Amino acid sequence: MTNALEQPRIICIHPSDNVAIVVTSGGLRAGTRLPDGLELVVDVPQGHKVALSDIAQGKNIIRYGEVIGTAVSDIARGEHVNESNVQLPTPPALDNLPMASRPSPALEPLEGYTFEGYRNVDGSVGTKNVLGITTSVQCVAGTLEHVVERIKKELLPRFPNVDDVVGLNHSYGCGVAIGAPAAIIPIRTLTNLARNPNFGCEIMVLGLGCEKLQPSTLVEDQPVKLFNHSDEAETSASTVSLQDESFSGFSEMIDGIMRVAERHLQRLDQRQRETCPVSDLVVGMQCGGSDAFSGVTANPAVGHATDLLVRAGASVMFSEVTEVRDAIHLLTPRAVSPEVAQMLIDQMAWYDDYLTLGHADRSANPSPGNKKGGLSNVVEKALGSVIKSGNSPIVDVIGPGERLRTRGLTFAATPASDFICGTLQAAAGMNLQVFTTGRGTPYNLAMTPVIKVSSNTTLSQRWHDLIDLDAGRIATGEATIEETGRALFDLILEVASGRTTVAAEKLGLYNDLVLFNPAPVT
Amino acid sequence: MTNALEQPRIICIHPSDNVAIVVTSGGLRAGTRLPDGLELVVDVPQGHKVALSDIAQGKNIIRYGEVIGTAVSDIARGEHVNESNVQLPTPPALDNLPMASRPSPALEPLEGYTFEGYRNVDGSVGTKNVLGITTSVQCVAGTLEHVVERIKKELLPRFPNVDDVVGLNHSYGCGVAIGAPAAIIPIRTLTNLARNPNFGCEIMVLGLGCEKLQPSTLVEDQPVKLFNHSDEAETSASTVSLQDESFSGFSEMIDGIMRVAERHLQRLDQRQRETCPVSDLVVGMQCGGSDAFSGVTANPAVGHATDLLVRAGASVMFSEVTEVRDAIHLLTPRAVSPEVAQMLIDQMAWYDDYLTLGHADRSANPSPGNKKGGLSNVVEKALGSVIKSGNSPIVDVIGPGERLRTRGLTFAATPASDFICGTLQAAAGMNLQVFTTGRGTPYNLAMTPVIKVSSNTTLSQRWHDLIDLDAGRIATGEATIEETGRALFDLILEVASGRTTVAAEKLGLYNDLVLFNPAPVT
Ligand SMILES: [Ca+2]
Ligand SMILES: [Ca+2]
Ligand SMILES: [Ca+2]
Ligand SMILES: [Ca+2]
Ligand SMILES: [Ca+2]
Repeated sequence: MTNALEQPRIICIHPSDNVAIVVTSGGLRAGTRLPDGLELVVDVPQGHKVALSDIAQGKNIIRYGEVIGTAVSDIARGEHVNESNVQLPTPPALDNLPMASRPSPALEPLEGYTFEGYRNVDGSVGTKNVLGITTSVQCVAGTLEHVVERIKKELLPRFPNVDDVVGLNHSYGCGVAIGAPAAIIPIRTLTNLARNPNFGCEIMVLGLGCEKLQPSTLVEDQPVKLFNHSDEAETSASTVSLQDESFSGFSEMIDGIMRVAERHLQRLDQRQRETCPVSDLVVGMQCGGSDAFSGVTANPAVGHATDLLVRAGASVMFSEVTEVRDAIHLLTPRAVSPEVAQMLIDQMAWYDDYLTLGHADRSANPSPGNKKGGLSNVVEKALGSVIKSGNSPIVDVIGPGERLRTRGLTFAATPASDFICGTLQAAAGMNLQVFTTGRGTPYNLAMTPVIKVSSNTTLSQRWHDLIDLDAGRIATGEATIEETGRALFDLILEVASGRTTVAAEKLGLYNDLVLFNPAPVT
Repeated sequence: MTNALEQPRIICIHPSDNVAIVVTSGGLRAGTRLPDGLELVVDVPQGHKVALSDIAQGKNIIRYGEVIGTAVSDIARGEHVNESNVQLPTPPALDNLPMASRPSPALEPLEGYTFEGYRNVDGSVGTKNVLGITTSVQCVAGTLEHVVERIKKELLPRFPNVDDVVGLNHSYGCGVAIGAPAAIIPIRTLTNLARNPNFGCEIMVLGLGCEKLQPSTLVEDQPVKLFNHSDEAETSASTVSLQDESFSGFSEMIDGIMRVAERHLQRLDQRQRETCPVSDLVVGMQCGGSDAFSGVTANPAVGHATDLLVRAGASVMFSEVTEVRDAIHLLTPRAVSPEVAQMLIDQMAWYDDYLTLGHADRSANPSPGNKKGGLSNVVEKALGSVIKSGNSPIVDVIGPGERLRTRGLTFAATPASDFICGTLQAAAGMNLQVFTTGRGTPYNLAMTPVIKVSSNTTLSQRWHDLIDLDAGRIATGEATIEETGRALFDLILEVASGRTTVAAEKLGLYNDLVLFNPAPVT
């Protein structure tokens, strides 16, 4: 691997690109001749762009198949392309964007792929069979941790078809401005988390009694049908409140919770995996701890997997508003209708206002570190992130905490924060997440499997027991984007079927749920 | 107890009050004659006020020793006093308040009381001897939970003088607008939490590597001296980053953390409790899940304990901005200087703005439920909460997440949310918390003991293993406010000395840290 990175090597993401990225460790010297005949006329550092052809002054500079700017002066083939000779494109104002203007790409249906999942009464399909115990308020967090441990020890061994018991602790529920307009976000997030397909419509709620957020809010019209698969829907949610006057002392509370848990475990235990079409997958795409290779290896491979999933009829979400904001003019054309394009714009505008209210700088311009790493401007930076969404049309947009409405590629508006994005994608109905990282993070979720893809081989070798797939082989030429994307697609089916356990789950590592609450606390 | 509540009974909080509260279950009928000779001239429900003397039209109605309004018409001794015959006092606008106008009450010094604590190199004193492992980012939360469990199992038994190992997981550190003005609040909260006296200046930090909040921020000038007790201060904070390139695989990360933990445990294990004056206590007062009795039993008893602690030279904090806001005109006079009074006002104004920005209603007026429970107006409601602060002068005011600066009674501005208030009081340097509740909550903190005081005997009997002290005996006449406040004072010394373990700690129940972050996430 170290050897491979020392070979003279550049990487080009899209056939129409007129620049490529130097991947060689330490960069490439002037005079270097590459296998395809390109000769560098100046030194170009690692991660930076080199011109693949002569680009006349005023002509477009194309990367990721998109215009990232125009040439300030004539640029010769083999020259270094950077912020000094790239004219920034018009910044993406939100009031004059191209709306659903791109002709739909010809994405052939992909047929014949299945996975083994747990079909739910509401039509959704779980990739795991988990007893979820949600909570209406942080007050009960300590009690929940105590009882989950006891259920795992005393009850779970008797129900071998149940994979796990997961407590959904969070910081919301009381001491919050529950009537503020933005409170709808954490409230619907919690409501929809309880409906995650991996809980099999057998969610329990642990409440206190006097909290502002009443447990009935979380489960009253549960389960809703995801995509209206099934005609029948039955609710089997159960609520236990600690202030219930029939409980005398802590041990009676615990006994009361254990009794209800046992009923749910009995029903969950009767379920069996069955063969399901890939169209029952709901996959969330996310990145975190990115590096210079994320945009040329892991994220493009994820984009290819996104297109394969969409072609097979699955639901795929991409998210992270602050990372797509500066490429919004490249997303609105991909919307299937002007209405969907407008929904994209509305989510960007909402976040712009939210940040402005908090006196936060969107930090739109690449930092000196970004430029040093080869990113010429904000468009190029955002492109490296949105490339996870592949080439598919954008069929829908949902707000933070909302539930997915349709198959295909949806933009699920969330912060880029890994835990908040994960929590919100889980609330949207995700049954599997793909997470790309360059620097490395042990991030994982308890309720859905998270497949971690590394952008470089150094990381996947050092973190051999924390990374699931190495996309770094794209940089070294040992694998193509398409091969790696296909390997990811195959791995998704294996993990969704319970045949492969992701690395962090083998180690028992899980992050906390983190709610997005833009409303005040009180 | 049920019998005692069926006896005709009223309760009067302060010698100068001209109203008292009916505590009898079901209220009292017209014609009832009370032991002290008062005869009711109308029916008065439980929790409601009865006039103790004739109150002429326009004269003050006094409760908690404070004016809660004036009589709309002549009110006879034995009549029902409620929102219909109480004229609301001028609402507490923030621009014309009495500043430090009350003569300091004669609070005699209380001498000769001590507890057994762990003296730290920075001069602060711990009530427990705990290895704290804080984190710079939520990314490492799963790893921290894993390693804390292993430290407890494999290392802690070898260090019998160390009470516990506590991981400080939180949702901050990355994916946040770290440059926004309000980000100072979560950042200083985390920095100061690491300095909590119960961690003995032996804090460890677990970081990832690429997070926005760098671990050095949390410990760089640690330890600061709390109150400048000691001349020497030495730092022994240690940071482990998961992205450290010397770690190959998860087990090496865990081994690396365990090695550092062992060093810290060795030093902590050499410490012994020593006799300390009460002035080394830093006690936070809080309430949550209040009921109609909270303001007449538990909170006044806490107020009495506050005064005892202050007389003995201790530091006491009261908090919960939204619950003191409507009694602010009764607090500014108690400030020791106009400057301190202004700091109180500034904190109220900041919170008013914060709520307004979030379109939240301060819900200042008592709800129909409050009025039904006997609260005539907002002043009376807030008084039931601020009575926890006793009668002592207010010597200082700190903002959310700031560290305490001086002994005596400080207003530590925090939201009323139990977990956020607890987290912020812990960051201020609290080594013991007192928490009053009427409805009941299993709330507890891992880093400092929390003594739970119930406002009614029904709760303390039903939750016999979750409540530490029953203040309900004040309502039934079995104990006075002074006796109960003194019992609480004595219990504080027992718990601070490690001789008594609080109920929730015996059960191993702990709530999560919840940060106050008014800045945006990204
Ligand atoms: Ca990202
Ligand atoms: Ca992210
Ligand atoms: Ca309260
Ligand atoms: Ca509270
Ligand atoms: Ca936890």
